[in-house]
Amino acid sequence: MKILALDTSTDRIVFGYKDETQSAEYSFEGNLRHSRTLMIKLDNFLASINIDINEIELFGCGIGPGSFTGLRIGIAAVKAMAYVNNRKIVGIPSLDLFALNVPFDGHVLVVKHARDINFYGALYFKKGNIVDPIISHFFKDKYSILEDLKHLEIESELFIIGDGTNEFRNLRDHFKVFECLNQQYNEIRGLYLVNEVERRYSLNEKIYDSKSLLPLYLQRPLAEINWEKRYGNKGAETQGDEKNG
Amino acid sequence: MKILALDTSTDRIVFGYKDETQSAEYSFEGNLRHSRTLMIKLDNFLASINIDINEIELFGCGIGPGSFTGLRIGIAAVKAMAYVNNRKIVGIPSLDLFALNVPFDGHVLVVKHARDINFYGALYFKKGNIVDPIISHFFKDKYSILEDLKHLEIESELFIIGDGTNEFRNLRDHFKVFECLNQQYNEIRGLYLVNEVERRYSLNEKIYDSKSLLPLYLQRPLAEINWEKRYGNKGAETQGDEKNG
Repeated sequence: MKILALDTSTDRIVFGYKDETQSAEYSFEGNLRHSRTLMIKLDNFLASINIDINEIELFGCGIGPGSFTGLRIGIAAVKAMAYVNNRKIVGIPSLDLFALNVPFDGHVLVVKHARDINFYGALYFKKGNIVDPIISHFFKDKYSILEDLKHLEIESELFIIGDGTNEFRNLRDHFKVFECLNQQYNEIRGLYLVNEVERRYSLNEKIYDSKSLLPLYLQRPLAEINWEKRYGNKGAETQGDEKNG
Repeated sequence: MKILALDTSTDRIVFGYKDETQSAEYSFEGNLRHSRTLMIKLDNFLASINIDINEIELFGCGIGPGSFTGLRIGIAAVKAMAYVNNRKIVGIPSLDLFALNVPFDGHVLVVKHARDINFYGALYFKKGNIVDPIISHFFKDKYSILEDLKHLEIESELFIIGDGTNEFRNLRDHFKVFECLNQQYNEIRGLYLVNEVERRYSLNEKIYDSKSLLPLYLQRPLAEINWEKRYGNKGAETQGDEKNG
C-alpha cells in the first residue's frame, strides 16, 4: 500500500512515504511560510521516488497540537488530496510522535510550554514502537500537572521530553527520572510518522476522511480569546495566530 | 555558506543541506541501486530547496566504513561535483555519525558485524554534539576487542550501539552498560551529517578536495582477497562486492 504522510505542526515541513519496496522521508526548515512552499516540496519529494499523487492509497497527517496556522495548512492539504481520490486519512497526535523518539522502553512524559505557567502534554507507556497513553493530552498549569503525576505508581524509568522538561525535574523526588533535553526528542520524523500511520490503519484505529479530519487543539488560539473579549462569543470563529496550542 | 552532504554507506541514500536561513534532509531506501537513482534524487532534493548545484560552496560526504559499492558511488559523485567548481569536501567517518545518534552524554561503543567473529567499530566519548574518539576505528575479532575494552577506565555510562551490540553485553560485568538496540541508532541522519560537516570545516579538520577524498575501508573486500588467493598479490586491484567493511 502506498502511504504518504505529512506533518506541519512544528517549524519543519515533514514528509514520510512507504510502500512494499521503498521508504523515504524529507524534512525542511526555513524562512518561507508553509503555505508558499508546501506543494513545491511535496511535488519534489514524490518525484524523487517516482510516485504520482494519484497513486497514493492512504494519507497520514500529524494533527497537533502545534503551530495553529502551520497545522491547518498541512491538514487542509492532506484533506484536499484525499478528497480528490476519496482516500482515507490517519491522523496522529503530534505528542505521540515526540514520544516515539525516545529510544528506550518506559514511561514518557511529554511537556510543552504554553502560555504563562501552563503546559500541554501527555504521559505514555512506551514499549518498542508502540506508545500507549496513560494520561492523554492535557492542558494545565504546572502545579496541577505535578500533583496529578506524583500520585501515579511508576516503577520503570520516567523519560521527560519537550521544552518544558526543566520545569518538571522535581519529579526526581518521586521517580527514576531521565531528562531528555537533546533536540532530537523534539522533532517529528517522517519515517516514524508514516510507520505509525500504517500501524494504526492496520488496527483500524483513528481513520478519517477528507470531511472528518480535524486538528487537535488543546488551548484556544489567542486571537479567538481576544475576539471573544471584544465581541462576546457570538459568531466567534477561530482566527489564526502563530501561537502554539 | 551553502553546504550539501550525502551518505551512501548504508542501505539508505541520505542528503543533508544547510545555509544561513534553511536546512533540509532526505533519506531513501528501496530496491533500486544507488547508481541508478542517486542523481535523480539529488536533483529533486535541490529543487525542493530551490538551490542550484553550482551554488554549493562546500560538500560533505560519509566515507564509511560501509557497503563497498554504495560508498564508492556516493564518494565518486561528491568528488565529481566538487571538481566542477573546485570546492572543498569534508569527509566524515560513518561510525562517528552513528555515535552522534546517542542522545545522552557518555562513552559510546559502536560495534558492527564483519565476517565470522570479526567486528569493526570505534569507542567515543560523546558530550553534546561532539564525539571524541577514544579508540579510533578498529577491525578485530570479538575476544581481542573485549580484552582491549576491559582494561579501560570508564566512569560514565557506556552506550553500546550497532548490530554487534548483543555480542558485547558481557561488558556489563565491568561497566554501567546501556545496550542501545533501537533501529534509530543505526541510521545516518542528513541533518547531523551536514551539521558535523560545518563544525569540522570551521575547525579546519579533515578537509579534502576532489582528488584527495578516499573511502575509509577497515577490512579488505572479499573479492580482493579471492583475487589474491588465485593470482597472488601482483596486480590485485580492489574489486567491488556488496559486503561491508
